[in-house]
Amino acid sequence: MAELLKLKSPADFIGKQGHGYISFGSGQPDLPPPKEAFEGINLTRDLRYGLIQGEFALRDALTHEYPGSTAENFVITNGASEALDLIFRIWGKGEKVLLPRPYYYSYPPIIEMAGMVPVYTDMVEGRIDLEDFRKKVTGCRAVLINSPSNPTGRVEAIETLKEIERITQNLGVYVVSDEVYKDLIYERENYHIQGNHVITVNSFSKTYCMCGVRVGYLWSADKSIVEAVCEAKTHTSMNTNLVGQDMALHAMRAPKEYILHQQEIWRARRDFMYQGLLDLGFDLWKPEGAFYVLPRCRNAREFLSLLVREYKVIAYLGEWFGAPDRLRFSYALDVKKIEEGLGRIRDAMKKVSVL
Amino acid sequence: MAELLKLKSPADFIGKQGHGYISFGSGQPDLPPPKEAFEGINLTRDLRYGLIQGEFALRDALTHEYPGSTAENFVITNGASEALDLIFRIWGKGEKVLLPRPYYYSYPPIIEMAGMVPVYTDMVEGRIDLEDFRKKVTGCRAVLINSPSNPTGRVEAIETLKEIERITQNLGVYVVSDEVYKDLIYERENYHIQGNHVITVNSFSKTYCMCGVRVGYLWSADKSIVEAVCEAKTHTSMNTNLVGQDMALHAMRAPKEYILHQQEIWRARRDFMYQGLLDLGFDLWKPEGAFYVLPRCRNAREFLSLLVREYKVIAYLGEWFGAPDRLRFSYALDVKKIEEGLGRIRDAMKKVSVL
Repeated sequence: MAELLKLKSPADFIGKQGHGYISFGSGQPDLPPPKEAFEGINLTRDLRYGLIQGEFALRDALTHEYPGSTAENFVITNGASEALDLIFRIWGKGEKVLLPRPYYYSYPPIIEMAGMVPVYTDMVEGRIDLEDFRKKVTGCRAVLINSPSNPTGRVEAIETLKEIERITQNLGVYVVSDEVYKDLIYERENYHIQGNHVITVNSFSKTYCMCGVRVGYLWSADKSIVEAVCEAKTHTSMNTNLVGQDMALHAMRAPKEYILHQQEIWRARRDFMYQGLLDLGFDLWKPEGAFYVLPRCRNAREFLSLLVREYKVIAYLGEWFGAPDRLRFSYALDVKKIEEGLGRIRDAMKKVSVL
Repeated sequence: MAELLKLKSPADFIGKQGHGYISFGSGQPDLPPPKEAFEGINLTRDLRYGLIQGEFALRDALTHEYPGSTAENFVITNGASEALDLIFRIWGKGEKVLLPRPYYYSYPPIIEMAGMVPVYTDMVEGRIDLEDFRKKVTGCRAVLINSPSNPTGRVEAIETLKEIERITQNLGVYVVSDEVYKDLIYERENYHIQGNHVITVNSFSKTYCMCGVRVGYLWSADKSIVEAVCEAKTHTSMNTNLVGQDMALHAMRAPKEYILHQQEIWRARRDFMYQGLLDLGFDLWKPEGAFYVLPRCRNAREFLSLLVREYKVIAYLGEWFGAPDRLRFSYALDVKKIEEGLGRIRDAMKKVSVL
């Protein structure tokens, strides 16, 4: 058996790309932001504190994507991460949050750091199991959903989302809907769940390929949520960086073709990656959104250790996402690299039994 | 008696300057950043995720200000606020943090949101009372100090800082030293307390007049602290915005004269504000650092309500800083405006008894 690397979390790989590695690790676009994001940015603008809630112009621009909204419904944050972190901190310690599993790896720590308690509902074939969901949602303060999903690549059916909307509304449970991949759906339109009990989290990171700029936001029609989040943010980070907010606002001026063109690129990569892993014999779900696959993999840690050490291939352990015996591959890299990476995986499969 | 405004916190005023108001409220420089902060910034750089710990070049540049340090001792954060917020989140819930009172208004909520418990030691004449400090520090996980202090404007004596350094080291208590005003001391040099038990928090906001860019950092010689903070930040906000980090790095190239020139401006304002309030009969401490005064003020809420409503003067209630019967004035505005503001205060004093 190959020596196991002491990999604890995705953070072990962050910033460690290059040097001949093929990285299926970090979930971020390799494509450039739209040129609009840079054009006309005035760095010599007033750089004193801005509004905690975020620049009015940016919040106002967002209203066009959320029909019936006003700028008051948004809080601009340091990426979707901070939006999520702040939300759970405004609720009571010890309260429960329902979390479909597999989950994005930061969800449990964010919930736990806030003093809340994650309760898990296991997905069936990468999709929310409404029967189990119904059983466990009672008594929770909130539900955290993520469709399209990181790490499953699945998109929940519109009927499922509507049912979640109804169940939670009837029970008075908040839904936190992390929709950072809403512009990367291959199969159908997104359904934006709605209601006073819904808090939507989104970001400019994936849609506009500007992860490092750290601009995200949350939307809520519930004024008390917006106020509580702003109150917390006043103490924890103040306004979101002003230059990043300007860049996000400018990026929104990119033509619709920018996003459509990206979707084409992602779809081609998705098809290549999915078929490639199928051809290698992996058992996996066909991604419907985002840019991840989560194939079953026996001896996952041993295989990943081998991949990293001898084949310079990075991927993430499924166990970090609540999915042991799987590996997560991001296909946010060009097809040539995906092909090279798949070749290395094929070679490594000769040394460790994974199927 | 004038109708009382329902002022709950400084946030009620943020972003509400202008429109004829003289604001002694928000604590931020009105001066521009050094031109170096803008020159040569390349917005079309790689904007994918950066290191959670912060850009190496910026951390490396900071080592020159912390003799004997390496880039590994720093974590770049979304302002000093996030550095403080992260630090308390890595310690155990229910543990105690000693906090000199008056305090910066975000300290208690940051500590409490982290699930820790603030324990207060009351200052004497705006300075830490070592006798009371010694009594209360035992059993605390950490002490949070802030010299120069917001809101008192006081600077602790070097002997006091050295004694705090010793006491805490002997007891195995961490010292979190918020030194965001270290470059704004009028009376003497700063003493940078040291040791493996010290965590220094600092920022580019005040020194380089770029509050809205939100770049701060923490320094620690204790590797386990740096790692725990990075681990938390991985989930709560990821890397600090990359463009802001570039601007901070560039700002550090400003000539020493930039900071010296600022200090002259601040000293002139300090002298004018201090003398002006003395002339009006207020009882207050002479500021030794930062840009705040905290005069005694009877009927503080009533007086502030009058100032805001009828005289368009903004100040902060001392009670937000743990100092009831005082008002906090920031003198981060030009002397002409300070003069105008003092005139309005003089007029308002005819209607409410404050001395």
